[in-house]
Amino acid sequence: MMIESFAEDALSRDGFLGGRLRLRQPCKGYRAGADPVLLAASIPARSGERVLDLGCGAGAAMLCLGARVPDLCLVGVEIQPAYAALARRNAAENGIPAMVHVADLSALPAPLRQAEFDHVIANPPYFRAGAHSRARDEGRALALGGGEELGAWVAAAARRLAARGCFHVIQRVARLPELLAACAQARLGSVELLPLSARAGREPELAILRARKGGRAAFRQHWPLVLHEGTHRTSREDYRPDIAAVLRDGAPLPWPA
Amino acid sequence: MMIESFAEDALSRDGFLGGRLRLRQPCKGYRAGADPVLLAASIPARSGERVLDLGCGAGAAMLCLGARVPDLCLVGVEIQPAYAALARRNAAENGIPAMVHVADLSALPAPLRQAEFDHVIANPPYFRAGAHSRARDEGRALALGGGEELGAWVAAAARRLAARGCFHVIQRVARLPELLAACAQARLGSVELLPLSARAGREPELAILRARKGGRAAFRQHWPLVLHEGTHRTSREDYRPDIAAVLRDGAPLPWPA
Repeated sequence: MMIESFAEDALSRDGFLGGRLRLRQPCKGYRAGADPVLLAASIPARSGERVLDLGCGAGAAMLCLGARVPDLCLVGVEIQPAYAALARRNAAENGIPAMVHVADLSALPAPLRQAEFDHVIANPPYFRAGAHSRARDEGRALALGGGEELGAWVAAAARRLAARGCFHVIQRVARLPELLAACAQARLGSVELLPLSARAGREPELAILRARKGGRAAFRQHWPLVLHEGTHRTSREDYRPDIAAVLRDGAPLPWPA
Repeated sequence: MMIESFAEDALSRDGFLGGRLRLRQPCKGYRAGADPVLLAASIPARSGERVLDLGCGAGAAMLCLGARVPDLCLVGVEIQPAYAALARRNAAENGIPAMVHVADLSALPAPLRQAEFDHVIANPPYFRAGAHSRARDEGRALALGGGEELGAWVAAAARRLAARGCFHVIQRVARLPELLAACAQARLGSVELLPLSARAGREPELAILRARKGGRAAFRQHWPLVLHEGTHRTSREDYRPDIAAVLRDGAPLPWPA
């Protein structure tokens, strides 16, 4: 069952990018953390380009990108009406023009099906539907372990990309085989992987994958990007300087050459 | 055209594992370097287990393994008769019992088709047939960019593995999507990847992949294993201590927990 709207007192307003962006999110439910911010920072979008955020939630990824790169044409798709409404409100309150559609990514509305994008970005659920039993909140459950398999996300991205357009997605390393197979299936090539490790020497649990429509370069995997200082958890705020610059100053996250 | 045998004066005799193993190899042609030694060191085989080396060449990987773990049942398959003969001779000269079949891995001889193995290991060609134009030597060409696609190697491995048996393969990162798809196709699961980087911070170009027949654990990718000290090439011999221990002392290469 879909949540149609959030009560006002069920929302918090949280600062992102050092407060440059303030996003309303449900207090309980899916709440954006560092992941959509890192995803947005990794997109080499330029002013004037068209960007589609699949499953945009409350808009964290596309609005972080819009806060860094001016004059993008931002479009979001979100299956949950309550989150889509939040994304629209967050865009308006932050003065970032964005259009948000309520739709299933496998059945986009006609105007979107005729549109092409230079970039498609996605932060899909990290767990398969039914595999994640901890999320009792329905909205959070859908955001964490929502309906579609990754193949549907990648296929939708590929369909909406212009020739040479780029898909960026952040996902658990555990699902990389599924993600890579979906890219091959959807004819997205020149795949590059940026593993994200919490600490130096630690097994990466997340990765950002980039693929290009019509790309033919060989698969590459970069040295892991390390998020936190030191080898042991000390505090949540011990981000490495380059990551702190992304999260607090809205810096881009350049891919290795 | 297959090379049937090497002239005696076309062979060198090279020390591996600090001289513990001495292998005859063609002076020109495919010559084993560190890769099969690292592959062999990464196999957690125990005395009494059955090991199949697909595309064994002159026997470097299986004989390195046999030099470290006593009383293995070692079987090699090699399509090139001249290399198979070398592998037999190398096994005998080093006092390591091994059986070597001349066969195409997609058409194994009947006795092998009835055998099961606890481990299958492979160091398949790094380039696709026809994609590698630098190898003028026919034997080297077949070893570097030989006939079968990776899917055939993985399928052959899966067919010969006992239930819960393990496949270990070393390959270029560029071909990981193909390798992962082949593992999924062949129902090899619990896939783990150990990327190999020449230097700390450098993009890994090779990886050792491990997969288990009937395995159902999620895909994992470990922090890269770094081969050389420092960040720049100084000499070829500046291996890090743990790698030097593998290459010169025959130490095992334990996988991260």
